[in-house]
Amino acid sequence: MNHLELFDNIRRKHSFLCVGLDTEIDKIPAFLLKEKDPVFEFNRRIIDATHKYAIAYKPNVAFYECYGSDGWRALEATVKYIKANYPDIFVIADAKRGDIGNTSKMYAKAFLENMPFDAITVAPYMGEDSVTPFLSVKDKWVILLALTSNKGADDFQYHNENGIRLFEKVLSQSQKWGTIDNMMYVAGATRAEMLKDIRSIAPDHFLLVPGVGAQGGSLKEVCLHGMNRHCGLIVNSSRGIIFADNSDNFDLVAGEKAKEIQTEMELYLREHDLI
Amino acid sequence: MNHLELFDNIRRKHSFLCVGLDTEIDKIPAFLLKEKDPVFEFNRRIIDATHKYAIAYKPNVAFYECYGSDGWRALEATVKYIKANYPDIFVIADAKRGDIGNTSKMYAKAFLENMPFDAITVAPYMGEDSVTPFLSVKDKWVILLALTSNKGADDFQYHNENGIRLFEKVLSQSQKWGTIDNMMYVAGATRAEMLKDIRSIAPDHFLLVPGVGAQGGSLKEVCLHGMNRHCGLIVNSSRGIIFADNSDNFDLVAGEKAKEIQTEMELYLREHDLI
Repeated sequence: MNHLELFDNIRRKHSFLCVGLDTEIDKIPAFLLKEKDPVFEFNRRIIDATHKYAIAYKPNVAFYECYGSDGWRALEATVKYIKANYPDIFVIADAKRGDIGNTSKMYAKAFLENMPFDAITVAPYMGEDSVTPFLSVKDKWVILLALTSNKGADDFQYHNENGIRLFEKVLSQSQKWGTIDNMMYVAGATRAEMLKDIRSIAPDHFLLVPGVGAQGGSLKEVCLHGMNRHCGLIVNSSRGIIFADNSDNFDLVAGEKAKEIQTEMELYLREHDLI
Repeated sequence: MNHLELFDNIRRKHSFLCVGLDTEIDKIPAFLLKEKDPVFEFNRRIIDATHKYAIAYKPNVAFYECYGSDGWRALEATVKYIKANYPDIFVIADAKRGDIGNTSKMYAKAFLENMPFDAITVAPYMGEDSVTPFLSVKDKWVILLALTSNKGADDFQYHNENGIRLFEKVLSQSQKWGTIDNMMYVAGATRAEMLKDIRSIAPDHFLLVPGVGAQGGSLKEVCLHGMNRHCGLIVNSSRGIIFADNSDNFDLVAGEKAKEIQTEMELYLREHDLI
């Protein structure tokens, strides 16, 4: 999937919503616990109820790894289920990987070859040879951390050499490694005012924006500063959708929450003359 | 295990060797492929043959994740095997994790609670709240990336604000989060001359030093610039030991290779009056 195909999906669905699958067994409805794989079963129902309003899903790998090999099976089943049933959906492994070349190559194999993820989030600290092994998998994407949504982003991401902050260096340097068809950036919604600075360095790249909802970011602000002529935004919401309810109807409520966000997104897409 | 217990192990074994378990199924001896879990079986034999000469093992998580849930089972079995048979050995999950607080907490659970790893490698890009969830697990360690051994380390780790390079900022800032009993740093052997600068900021911390062997770093140089009064070094070798041979005697050859490095380490420990 290239950036124009992503934009096509956005226009078709009037949405640039990514649903984050941060599935915690302690938070899923009790009646699912009798299922053989409760985590997958929860995901499956969330996906079926929300796919009309979303263009992407983002399983957060930590929430699967904490259940060991069982968790990995649930992760594998989830991404396969999405691709088998909704092949146009963009599926992101939120994994924040990155290591020396021969090791990043193994992570690329794990997520982009052995599992059918379209993209993986990557931490930039170790530089070019930690990122390029992911980029060399055909038709797959790296989503590189630039400016994250958490408080700790202040610690190192603003480290400033002659007016160039670290996240800006990451944005400019990494454009030598990938293109707008295989690289996007994480830019936290909690720092919406910084999206203007990010757009001055990366005007055409897609941005994956976490932090709307539970983390307090504003969708309106994100669109104001971050939207480009191909939308250029994939905005994630996790807890606000998937854990909105834990009754027997949790999936219907999740669908309603996703639809609410999609409706707001449609408004901003119209305001920007993109639909 | 605190830093003095680590030093005790070093003095007892005359070694500060960590054996990296970057186990690739394509490189293990063919006769092991008939085993139910060839990766674990390979590791088990390597561990039995090398444990006398090593104080630590470091499974590289990517090499297990690329085999999916089967790989996770092999990882789980490996760390359990080490802890059950050689409880004084320090076991490091080389995972390079790091994410927003609620997610790092899940990774901490995965590696430091559900599996009996003593330590996990963590990438610092996302700052304090991405690191502290690992530190709050009792008696466990964070090994934070400071200056890595790969070429890409040049891209961002030297980003220099008023004479303070990013890796130096990571070293100083993170000392507010952890102590010399729950935090160490990754410092690549390929940059041995930089160990002097690292020691000026973190004189008492243990350093995990990859890059000796296949990556070209010199053990002598590492000791010259990096050793402190408690040794303060855990030096890793992976491919040079575990894939030294792929005959039926691969484990014996691995043991000989580990012994060779241990013998050299003993020399430097004596030179520094530590044994």
